[in-house]
Amino acid sequence: MHHPTTMQKNDHPFDTDTRVEAIADGSFAATISDRWTALGGVVNGGYLLAACLQALRQMMPFPDPLVVSAFFLRPGTPGPAEVHTELARKGRRSATGQARLLQDGAETARVMATFTELRQSEGRTLLLSDRPDLPPPWEAVDPMAGRSLPGVTMTEMVEFRMARLPGWWHGRPGGDPSTEFWMRFKQHRDADLFSLALLVDAAAPAVLDIGVPASSTIELTVHLRAHPAPGWLACRARTRHVLGGYHEEDFEIWDTTGTLVAQSRQLALLPASR
Amino acid sequence: MHHPTTMQKNDHPFDTDTRVEAIADGSFAATISDRWTALGGVVNGGYLLAACLQALRQMMPFPDPLVVSAFFLRPGTPGPAEVHTELARKGRRSATGQARLLQDGAETARVMATFTELRQSEGRTLLLSDRPDLPPPWEAVDPMAGRSLPGVTMTEMVEFRMARLPGWWHGRPGGDPSTEFWMRFKQHRDADLFSLALLVDAAAPAVLDIGVPASSTIELTVHLRAHPAPGWLACRARTRHVLGGYHEEDFEIWDTTGTLVAQSRQLALLPASR
Repeated sequence: MHHPTTMQKNDHPFDTDTRVEAIADGSFAATISDRWTALGGVVNGGYLLAACLQALRQMMPFPDPLVVSAFFLRPGTPGPAEVHTELARKGRRSATGQARLLQDGAETARVMATFTELRQSEGRTLLLSDRPDLPPPWEAVDPMAGRSLPGVTMTEMVEFRMARLPGWWHGRPGGDPSTEFWMRFKQHRDADLFSLALLVDAAAPAVLDIGVPASSTIELTVHLRAHPAPGWLACRARTRHVLGGYHEEDFEIWDTTGTLVAQSRQLALLPASR
Repeated sequence: MHHPTTMQKNDHPFDTDTRVEAIADGSFAATISDRWTALGGVVNGGYLLAACLQALRQMMPFPDPLVVSAFFLRPGTPGPAEVHTELARKGRRSATGQARLLQDGAETARVMATFTELRQSEGRTLLLSDRPDLPPPWEAVDPMAGRSLPGVTMTEMVEFRMARLPGWWHGRPGGDPSTEFWMRFKQHRDADLFSLALLVDAAAPAVLDIGVPASSTIELTVHLRAHPAPGWLACRARTRHVLGGYHEEDFEIWDTTGTLVAQSRQLALLPASR
């Protein structure tokens, strides 16, 4: 069957840029692309995490990442990389492994992840918070319409729709680092669990609304809760506690059926003010 | 100076039960105690995490754990253990390492942690949420007064004070897994950053209030934000999203000066219902 408006899943930049190739037992070659840079031109951490998950996927006896934690040790650089994986434990219903992303022999990121088969989870379901309250995407504002941010190549890959533009966007930070918006890949690729691990880190940091220029991620934990339905994703990002520059950012992604599909928290650091 | 009511810090069960002894380069001997068991008689995950952090502390060039992630691979067992550590990266302001807790040759838990010196953090501070709204501890209810829970030895180590007892305590779960309470070690030991990593996992799971008997932790991430002031700790535990039995538990610990000192999130699983 022919899908004229839908790019084949594995031709999308997300798929080509996170593709890994086995080079030895548990080791994979990857190529870090320059198409996923964030504020300051740095390679996005969620993208590095997604590449590590694609390597772990090759050796895991279960298909779905469930919980992943990434420590970012050095800035990623566009160019060749290796991912060294290790299976730490294989159980009946889940397995846990580790991936180390190496560039020029130095470790860029270390990822631990538990995989399972989400569709076989049989326990109770109870959602006690509301999904983001947003106008339909086609009635919402595209913050990037006709614009681009120098060095921020991710805005060519991911698009957003908002009820209104955040204050910091106009140079008037409102002081409340808490936002809701729609998000999806450009070029017609629906999200899956692996790309959700990138998307939780794909928006501008919520703390920009307290008047800071940037935020750098130290650690990112992502819970993958359900396979997302096709289409737009409703997101909520929030920072409540900044101490000595360190702050958490909580992020939720809900699909259009009203299911929480991913939930993440990162610990990040404001740039030194001088 | 003599402190008649204060046990010397390193004589407290937390200190003796998380003590490690170097046995080789980066490897430590530990003894998992039976004094930190939770519901079902299982060794508490936060306690295993704290033991791993005590080992990492020995080889880290910075004194304070800042962000730690623990994956629990197998149930811990009272008895001998080894902790194998590795320094992944040493930077100017922080360092990141890994600890593997081994019992009988099998890996019980794997911990990644970034250490820093918190008192040297110079960035901005902004707290946008309120600390738990609780009556003074001496006017609050001690849920364990005159009681003990069979197999739950942690209740001899940690004590709680609540505005009122939760519904599940009386066999009438209220359906809202969200609680606030005071907590501290028994036997007069104030908390430090290392014990906060245990204390975020020391209370009964918030989900008991939806009528489930237990919850098992898969992964626990803890952000240590500030050295806690002496005395009682004000805590908030909350679960909002249960999907197929998997659920997050968010936990905050505030000290009596009104500072958020620790924030954690865990992914946990309800027991299979059959």
